[in-house]
Amino acid sequence: MSFDVLQEKIIACQNPTVAGLDPKPDYVPPDMLRAVYAQYGETLEGAAEAIYRFNCGLMDALAGVVPAVKPQAAYYERLGWRGMEVLERTIRYAHEKGFFVIADIKRGDIGSTAEAYSDGWLGHTQVGGTSCTAFDADCVTLNGYMGSDSVNPFLKTCREEDKCVFLLVKTSNPGSGEYQNRTMEERLAYEVMGDLVAQWGGSETGKYGFTRAGAVVGATYPAELEQLRAQLKHTFLLVPGYGAQGGTAEDVRHAFDAQGHGAIVNASRSIMCAWKKTGKNGTDYQQAAQDAAIAMRDDIGRFVTVG
Amino acid sequence: MSFDVLQEKIIACQNPTVAGLDPKPDYVPPDMLRAVYAQYGETLEGAAEAIYRFNCGLMDALAGVVPAVKPQAAYYERLGWRGMEVLERTIRYAHEKGFFVIADIKRGDIGSTAEAYSDGWLGHTQVGGTSCTAFDADCVTLNGYMGSDSVNPFLKTCREEDKCVFLLVKTSNPGSGEYQNRTMEERLAYEVMGDLVAQWGGSETGKYGFTRAGAVVGATYPAELEQLRAQLKHTFLLVPGYGAQGGTAEDVRHAFDAQGHGAIVNASRSIMCAWKKTGKNGTDYQQAAQDAAIAMRDDIGRFVTVG
Repeated sequence: MSFDVLQEKIIACQNPTVAGLDPKPDYVPPDMLRAVYAQYGETLEGAAEAIYRFNCGLMDALAGVVPAVKPQAAYYERLGWRGMEVLERTIRYAHEKGFFVIADIKRGDIGSTAEAYSDGWLGHTQVGGTSCTAFDADCVTLNGYMGSDSVNPFLKTCREEDKCVFLLVKTSNPGSGEYQNRTMEERLAYEVMGDLVAQWGGSETGKYGFTRAGAVVGATYPAELEQLRAQLKHTFLLVPGYGAQGGTAEDVRHAFDAQGHGAIVNASRSIMCAWKKTGKNGTDYQQAAQDAAIAMRDDIGRFVTVG
Repeated sequence: MSFDVLQEKIIACQNPTVAGLDPKPDYVPPDMLRAVYAQYGETLEGAAEAIYRFNCGLMDALAGVVPAVKPQAAYYERLGWRGMEVLERTIRYAHEKGFFVIADIKRGDIGSTAEAYSDGWLGHTQVGGTSCTAFDADCVTLNGYMGSDSVNPFLKTCREEDKCVFLLVKTSNPGSGEYQNRTMEERLAYEVMGDLVAQWGGSETGKYGFTRAGAVVGATYPAELEQLRAQLKHTFLLVPGYGAQGGTAEDVRHAFDAQGHGAIVNASRSIMCAWKKTGKNGTDYQQAAQDAAIAMRDDIGRFVTVG
């Protein structure tokens, strides 16, 4: 079960965190950026290449410290197909370095379309008699607003390829309550979504007790996080919102079960942009990222021991 | 206002429909597919190239008949970055042929990420001192589950670039009711989403009375469609589900206002795969697509006259 693979990587690193790879060109250290633009010009190709080199440098520094990376598709799509090409290469490099890869795509569409997404992001694409792979992530994020038939094609691929998904339940952004905290059938809308996720995950659980359908629950709403951990006992949680968005280590501790399992906390900017705080103009971006990742691990470690 | 542009193209064609470009390699006529595979092999590159040629042939046949095309991102992502490259070219070719382009991406994410998506799909991406364009669609589809801060960055770009969006309200798929038809604050969840869409659209309307925030409402739920038309007087509707999914011309008539404005009906497979029904092995795919598009126009025209 794919969440077992993730949980074991977390245990090996003693670190329940994931590094978001949401790079913008201005996160790339100036010297690196200048060198790439000198070669490629100020073009989408140049920006994509700069981001790739930065991603690789970050992953070199984070390997063995952080168990997983989470590229956010938007920052690659922003650069058009050049960005998507670099996203494919980033995922390949992440696998070479031993990371578990969560592609943060938040897709959701009707059945036949969900199948196409699932082929591209988790599975294989049949071309004539040949089976090809495209993005080949280990896990994706999904939006379940459209219902079970928008999710099941992904879960089918997950069973075939031993992969897994995270569905949006209670998101970390300031406006998440506008819809998710409305009252729905005497509960809150996100709780109902949580029940659907549990239902879609089914009864098949892995060694650590989790189904293939995880949930996204923001660190910025600690009361909801605690409640959802209790509600969704067999659901692995992806917890964004730590750091730049305001969530603290104390806020995220309730995401974990009694063994310190079942959750992974994301940080993106605080790791990628750590070099901006050391006054060395990015020459130390790898060390700064590693230090930030270790600081985050230790910060959360004050409240959570991964068993 | 961008929906004015769409409405005027609809009036010029006297055809309130949009052709979905959701191509799979097996929708491509066998001779064309064989020729491309002979050149590129059975690879993602080959599949992407086949789809591009097919898209161009379809658009050549549909120009002047159909006012808009709607590429579904999943079918391009399925082919990895090769597919995305072809999606960019497809959108460029669509603009050359005069089509309004709705990129069906159903994105939705936190503010900073929504901004990145919006740059990539509707706006510009700043690379150093250079402003670049990536996908450059006229309009995208979005999922509003995450709230206003996931939508506002797109609406900001829409105001800057004179573009527009469609937000999922009541989707066409069989499972859409599992969440969207739950009771939310004494109404149904999709009605509440509809109100949010109206609110997000604001008070600025174009010549035909529509804001920049449209809504997706499936043809497969005609009662809901009729009700949402009445509820959302200033909201342009994108209506999927006609044809292969089971929606009929009679089902979609309620999507339009008294002038026959304010809605566009999508069909994908029935146009792309029309050649499969003529027994000519795809040699007539252009004629077959055009015939199918005209038949759809005339079918809807029995119930709706575009003023």
